[in-house]
Amino acid sequence: MIKVAIIGYGNLGRGVERALKQNKDMELVGIFTRRSPELVQTEGGQAYKMEELTSKKNAIDVCILCGGSATDLPAQTPEWTHSFNTIDSFDTHAKIPEHFAKVDKVAKENKTTSIISTGWDPGLFSLNRLYAQSILPVGQTNTFWGKGVSQGHSDALRRIAGVADAVQYTIPNNDVIEKLKAGEQLDLTTRDKHFRECFVVLDEGADGEKIREIIVSMPNYFAEYDTEVHFISQAELDQEHKEMPHGGTVLHTGTTHENTKQVIEYNLQLESNPEFTASVLVAYARACVRLAREKQFGAFTVLDIAPKYLSDRTDEELRKELL
Amino acid sequence: MIKVAIIGYGNLGRGVERALKQNKDMELVGIFTRRSPELVQTEGGQAYKMEELTSKKNAIDVCILCGGSATDLPAQTPEWTHSFNTIDSFDTHAKIPEHFAKVDKVAKENKTTSIISTGWDPGLFSLNRLYAQSILPVGQTNTFWGKGVSQGHSDALRRIAGVADAVQYTIPNNDVIEKLKAGEQLDLTTRDKHFRECFVVLDEGADGEKIREIIVSMPNYFAEYDTEVHFISQAELDQEHKEMPHGGTVLHTGTTHENTKQVIEYNLQLESNPEFTASVLVAYARACVRLAREKQFGAFTVLDIAPKYLSDRTDEELRKELL
Repeated sequence: MIKVAIIGYGNLGRGVERALKQNKDMELVGIFTRRSPELVQTEGGQAYKMEELTSKKNAIDVCILCGGSATDLPAQTPEWTHSFNTIDSFDTHAKIPEHFAKVDKVAKENKTTSIISTGWDPGLFSLNRLYAQSILPVGQTNTFWGKGVSQGHSDALRRIAGVADAVQYTIPNNDVIEKLKAGEQLDLTTRDKHFRECFVVLDEGADGEKIREIIVSMPNYFAEYDTEVHFISQAELDQEHKEMPHGGTVLHTGTTHENTKQVIEYNLQLESNPEFTASVLVAYARACVRLAREKQFGAFTVLDIAPKYLSDRTDEELRKELL
Repeated sequence: MIKVAIIGYGNLGRGVERALKQNKDMELVGIFTRRSPELVQTEGGQAYKMEELTSKKNAIDVCILCGGSATDLPAQTPEWTHSFNTIDSFDTHAKIPEHFAKVDKVAKENKTTSIISTGWDPGLFSLNRLYAQSILPVGQTNTFWGKGVSQGHSDALRRIAGVADAVQYTIPNNDVIEKLKAGEQLDLTTRDKHFRECFVVLDEGADGEKIREIIVSMPNYFAEYDTEVHFISQAELDQEHKEMPHGGTVLHTGTTHENTKQVIEYNLQLESNPEFTASVLVAYARACVRLAREKQFGAFTVLDIAPKYLSDRTDEELRKELL
């Protein structure tokens, strides 16, 4: 059995707790939170104070870090990787190299294993970009997201002073997708491919126009897109915007000899983004523990992990059942 | 530069020669054929007699074996793996474990590296089945092929005594695909999902009814499907059935907590099946040489290979550009 700790208990942490129940080779050791454990309503798992984590070191094979990318993970992943094998879903694309370097150093010094930036993008979509571009080097890859709620972007909104609550929708430009599938060669900017729509609840007395400006100019998150911001009440947000569907497509259109067209498409339709992301984290938690048992220490990403490590089946079973 | 030999020169071998031109880190050493080299019309590559391969051992990093699965590869892959790193596209699903064991033994004894059963199915579709099932263990995977020409099945037809030429189309049952995407739970047999349609040119004097019986009862290829056989002239075959489009879909419908539906779909639309398969072989040839340089000897499949090995970019570039 692989013994798992959940660090942080929002939508993603809850998703991990649920996903662990679907994987027979894994068991939950505990949920570690900065809140008062008595106040955390879990799905049955025992909640502990974050400070108790270190004392349980010998009972834990891997920690799944379920905090946000804006401020939690940049600090937490290096910190906990001192003592534990870790998995995170750090998704600030531009800062991944820096995050990787930091975690890799800690992991190698302390003989632990960490897989960072796991989930579906970065994660499964990254894998599909890599496979497609390696197989069809003459071609163009485009990634489209949504329509759906981005947890990372919603989280970034909620961390702005004066914002009480917020939800962000990513909306793909379907006209562009159809043109690409039909074989048109397009030179696309980030702005052409998606729109971003934000529903924001302000704290009492907060300056809406100032916050709108902070949002639309936030680098890596909103500055590169056409972003619409709506201020609404908490009641409206709770009623209309609390489901978390998402999805998206990695579309690679390549050519082989003399413009022979070859299309590779990877598509996700998710009724719950956090539950799906959690399921990816849990599969890579299995891979992480296996790498650690083989003494492969350091930081890894999904690009470094042989697919078989994700499965609880033996190599023989996989060859027989899946090839 | 990675120095590549092509072994066997049919549609697949020609596709490999074309694909090598799209990969700047690879160069063709030569094409090795059982035919008279003077009679082989290549795309510019030098053709040699098969017997000359051994003498060029030091000039070759990897041999891409482009023969058929019915009789060529079961003999050739173990044979050439004695002296070379090898890649094949062995696609008789039921016999992969046996083929793997044989090649693995030779490779380990001779300190070579072989990646078997590469292509899109087995190959990319196998990968997608593995990723999807590992991430959403509560779910159902279905693979659909076509409509398109299956090289393996056409090859099997052509090897029957009395058959002069033949083409086989795999046709998916689209009704079933639509039902699955709409969320229906179906218990499907192999026969429900596809039809097989064969266009066969007989040798003069061959017994059509006997050959039809051999085809429809051929295990692993046709016996498990509803198979239609049409006997036509060589002229009609050449005119109507010499394009080689293909494609298909791996569809995994899973659920996370309380029946929350999550759909993973991987889809290929290929104008040339052999050229696409060849492109997959070439990417894995790169991986093969890298594994060999790391002294990872033995047989491997796509399930064992970390995605980064397929790319000519560095780990740092991949993290920066693809995650």
